[in-house]
Amino acid sequence: MEAITKASMTVCPFIRSQSTQALRQMSQTSGLSKEAHRCPFMTAALKAKNAQRNYSSASKVARATAASSTNSNNLSAPYALSSEDLIANEIALDLSTKESGFDYNGFLECELDKKRQDKSYRYFNNINRLAKEFPRAHRAVEEDKVTVWCSNDYLGMGRNKHTLAEMKRVLEKYGSGAGGTRNIAGHNIHAMLLEAELAALHKHEAALVFSSCFVANDAILSLFGQKIKDLVIFSDESNHASMIQGIRNSRAKKHIFKHNDLADLEAKLAQYPKSTPKLIAFESVYSMCGSVAPIEAICDLADKYGALTFLDEVHAVGMYGPHGAGIAEHLNFEAHLKSGLDSPEVKTVMSRVDMITGTLGKAFGTVGGYVTGKANLIDWFRSYAPGFIFTTTLPPSIMAGSRASIRYQRSTLKDRIAQQKNTRYVKDNLNAIGVPVIPNPSHIVPVLIGNAPDAKKASDMLLEKYKIYVQAINFPTVPIGQERLRITPTPGHGPEISNKLIEALESVFQDLNLPKIKDWESQGGLCGVGEPNSSSINHIWTDEHLSLSDVDLNPNVFDPRIAPVGVSSGVVA
Amino acid sequence: MEAITKASMTVCPFIRSQSTQALRQMSQTSGLSKEAHRCPFMTAALKAKNAQRNYSSASKVARATAASSTNSNNLSAPYALSSEDLIANEIALDLSTKESGFDYNGFLECELDKKRQDKSYRYFNNINRLAKEFPRAHRAVEEDKVTVWCSNDYLGMGRNKHTLAEMKRVLEKYGSGAGGTRNIAGHNIHAMLLEAELAALHKHEAALVFSSCFVANDAILSLFGQKIKDLVIFSDESNHASMIQGIRNSRAKKHIFKHNDLADLEAKLAQYPKSTPKLIAFESVYSMCGSVAPIEAICDLADKYGALTFLDEVHAVGMYGPHGAGIAEHLNFEAHLKSGLDSPEVKTVMSRVDMITGTLGKAFGTVGGYVTGKANLIDWFRSYAPGFIFTTTLPPSIMAGSRASIRYQRSTLKDRIAQQKNTRYVKDNLNAIGVPVIPNPSHIVPVLIGNAPDAKKASDMLLEKYKIYVQAINFPTVPIGQERLRITPTPGHGPEISNKLIEALESVFQDLNLPKIKDWESQGGLCGVGEPNSSSINHIWTDEHLSLSDVDLNPNVFDPRIAPVGVSSGVVA
Repeated sequence: MEAITKASMTVCPFIRSQSTQALRQMSQTSGLSKEAHRCPFMTAALKAKNAQRNYSSASKVARATAASSTNSNNLSAPYALSSEDLIANEIALDLSTKESGFDYNGFLECELDKKRQDKSYRYFNNINRLAKEFPRAHRAVEEDKVTVWCSNDYLGMGRNKHTLAEMKRVLEKYGSGAGGTRNIAGHNIHAMLLEAELAALHKHEAALVFSSCFVANDAILSLFGQKIKDLVIFSDESNHASMIQGIRNSRAKKHIFKHNDLADLEAKLAQYPKSTPKLIAFESVYSMCGSVAPIEAICDLADKYGALTFLDEVHAVGMYGPHGAGIAEHLNFEAHLKSGLDSPEVKTVMSRVDMITGTLGKAFGTVGGYVTGKANLIDWFRSYAPGFIFTTTLPPSIMAGSRASIRYQRSTLKDRIAQQKNTRYVKDNLNAIGVPVIPNPSHIVPVLIGNAPDAKKASDMLLEKYKIYVQAINFPTVPIGQERLRITPTPGHGPEISNKLIEALESVFQDLNLPKIKDWESQGGLCGVGEPNSSSINHIWTDEHLSLSDVDLNPNVFDPRIAPVGVSSGVVA
Repeated sequence: MEAITKASMTVCPFIRSQSTQALRQMSQTSGLSKEAHRCPFMTAALKAKNAQRNYSSASKVARATAASSTNSNNLSAPYALSSEDLIANEIALDLSTKESGFDYNGFLECELDKKRQDKSYRYFNNINRLAKEFPRAHRAVEEDKVTVWCSNDYLGMGRNKHTLAEMKRVLEKYGSGAGGTRNIAGHNIHAMLLEAELAALHKHEAALVFSSCFVANDAILSLFGQKIKDLVIFSDESNHASMIQGIRNSRAKKHIFKHNDLADLEAKLAQYPKSTPKLIAFESVYSMCGSVAPIEAICDLADKYGALTFLDEVHAVGMYGPHGAGIAEHLNFEAHLKSGLDSPEVKTVMSRVDMITGTLGKAFGTVGGYVTGKANLIDWFRSYAPGFIFTTTLPPSIMAGSRASIRYQRSTLKDRIAQQKNTRYVKDNLNAIGVPVIPNPSHIVPVLIGNAPDAKKASDMLLEKYKIYVQAINFPTVPIGQERLRITPTPGHGPEISNKLIEALESVFQDLNLPKIKDWESQGGLCGVGEPNSSSINHIWTDEHLSLSDVDLNPNVFDPRIAPVGVSSGVVA
């Protein structure tokens, strides 16, 4: 021990700082071992060392089994032990018999402390949205009511009478759950009809429903990378956590391109031959800032460089396009409006996108996610994606209700137009009083605050003093310094309650002395607020679109008969 | 080209086999390039090469951007190009301008063909389970009714009147969806009460609800491996796909131990010092064979080697233990029965397990998954797991219905006892007529068939001829050669309809000439069928347990008041 301790003093400042007497004491009481295991360097070294031997505390039966079976432990290979590692190992080896287990509790406390320290620890607000008083909700006490201004029930479909009636009917008839995976007792007419409805919505050949769009994005992107060995994924830097996770789990090579930056995307695509399989993953509406992707130009690049396009329309389905199919539909508004349920004769952006993922849990008011695309692509997901195969099907009532929502929204422009008008009203009036709205062409109203404590204070003050619920959005959802209140007007947020929000925000900005547009201007601007050309935003819903009414819809969208698609059940060859 | 082609002949048998004239022709028409891109070796080499240069077809703007920005491409680093690579690269470089894109369609068709070839391509049966006629369902045509014998609605809770009434009440009052993530407008009293209910069920400090237990398992296991750098995961070889995915995504070091094999598990644990963080991941009831884990002994090993225990009780919650908390509860049956809602004074197996994951979508009849454990562990999942944070909360009606199911099942033994009695009846009668049931101590009745085509034929014949739906279970869900029919009796499958199943199976076995117990016996047995000691199974539900009735329950389990747990909303420090 004496020699080892002396040698270790050359590498470890902790050991170097101890007196000789203290070191002797520690080596006798296993204190040195404990300290070594708190040190990440020594712990790593220890593990590498121990990979090379049977550990001394193993029981006889374990040792016998280990000795007789193939050694599945290949930890030692990737480690090239330095002389410093070896010294640490010797110390550990000497002391290991007396050591204690890993301090899981200490680890957890430390992790939670980190969240508290950087102010990213989250307190969830108890918000019970009332179907009959939309957009009102009660808090813990039923009498304590607030107006919800940050829900993703973007169109108020959570209380739509057609959706609710269909859900109750199916709940009564088919019960509360699907009772199995799609392959084992959980496949039914509700899944088939919903998938047919989704395929028809996006005018794609087929669709597949998942537990959520988080699962859909994760499962699909993972599968691509795992199955197409040489795939390279190109991902917008602002992509949602579900896509980031899917790409990470795919283990494919990836390039992160600058947000909505075509030049950067092309530069990255151009590094590979056309024959290299590629996938471009992006969203249509980015939910935290409201920006909208240049979908058509991305399709052009995909064609040029031989890439598949994966488009997440989670924050757009239900709300854009003449029938609520999303931004891709909106980009050929007139053609789709005219053809209604049918595909326009012209090639559309929606038909060019290879995959569209979407959610049933936001504008459609229920829960679940999906993907649409060509039949064999959907069949591939159906046949290979564990996140689809090995999970319980959504309840029949959820699928039937989702289908009712989609059909309802296809057959009326009212909610989409009302949402956009209410959004414009809120944005225009906030801008007029100098409250900084991050400029964007969509339905998101991000009010810039700029730091976490103020964002929380503003949110708390709105809730407690004005009975208005707007969640503060902090890191990691948005970058540090860009904290905001994210406001989402719905068709139910008309001028009267909007005025209350606007007045409340004006007061909160004054009371908390929060920076207004002119303040950001004097600092050179941030996130488009107070920047020179921030006013030149073109709304996705133009004035012309907003002047339409349901008589402009093609009659074929009213209660159409949409037959199930074969792929939903498996295609008989 | 001449020199490159000659050089490439030394490495590529394809090029070597061509005539000089053919090679010249190919290099002029890009045929050589196409072939090169069909070759995985050349494709990989190509990619590595291209990582080092701007590709020649890049547009001016892309080249300019690439030149001015930091090169985020670090693909070249891990590649150590051999001379063979370099030759392949030169060929590719020369021909790359004329190449076509990756053949995505061909890839997909090939993948689907593989599934058809190995008979693992799945056709989903359209099964619409009727709440009022449980366990009956209709197929595509409403009049075409069948008896469902393979659902995971194990207790028939999908049609429980308390659950359905609560779901309808909440649907009416709070609408069809949660409208947001738990952090943004999607946290509510239903989430809080459900999590409190789940914590109380497992007598753990806290609980967290996920979209599904697939998501819970994936998210939790991923998080452990990603956050605890030196973690080693020990996983039962029969673990569910969700756990396999979570462990894979965790990127932690892992050891797969033989199914329920304590000696093998210990041998693997013993390879590491006690201080190395470890996690043992296993299930209580393995759903495809019905085997049950030695939970207590695994907890002993975990204590000895300093490991956390992660127990998936998906196929046990609702059905085992005096209150339906699962196998871990069942192992201290009398103590829990006596203490009811309270924790027994003795240390129990359930309290020793660090994490229990479970589902709301099987015995509890709805949809969703969860985890229970110590408060800071649950808070860590709540604060760090993307699969929890960034997804829409389950609808209030689903959460409220799930809570009603749990409460109902806690307050009666009837369904659990009826299920076990019906299971015994089916197993005993099948064994009596020589139909091979894979022996196990749980509620699963796996009827061994032994090959995929016969399993499908048997399933199809049961459905078409006998109006009995039992899904065939094939690879990859079970190993090749162990294909089976997986039968799940419920409280609704009494002797009368069980007799119909037994008779039908007898006929199907005769008609298809399927191997019976004696046939497996003569081959030395398989999966415990026809093996010497296959009859010595101890039922988890003993005769004594089956003789209990609801008067034996502690009165504190009837309609208890269970207050929300702070962790569900975030703990104010």
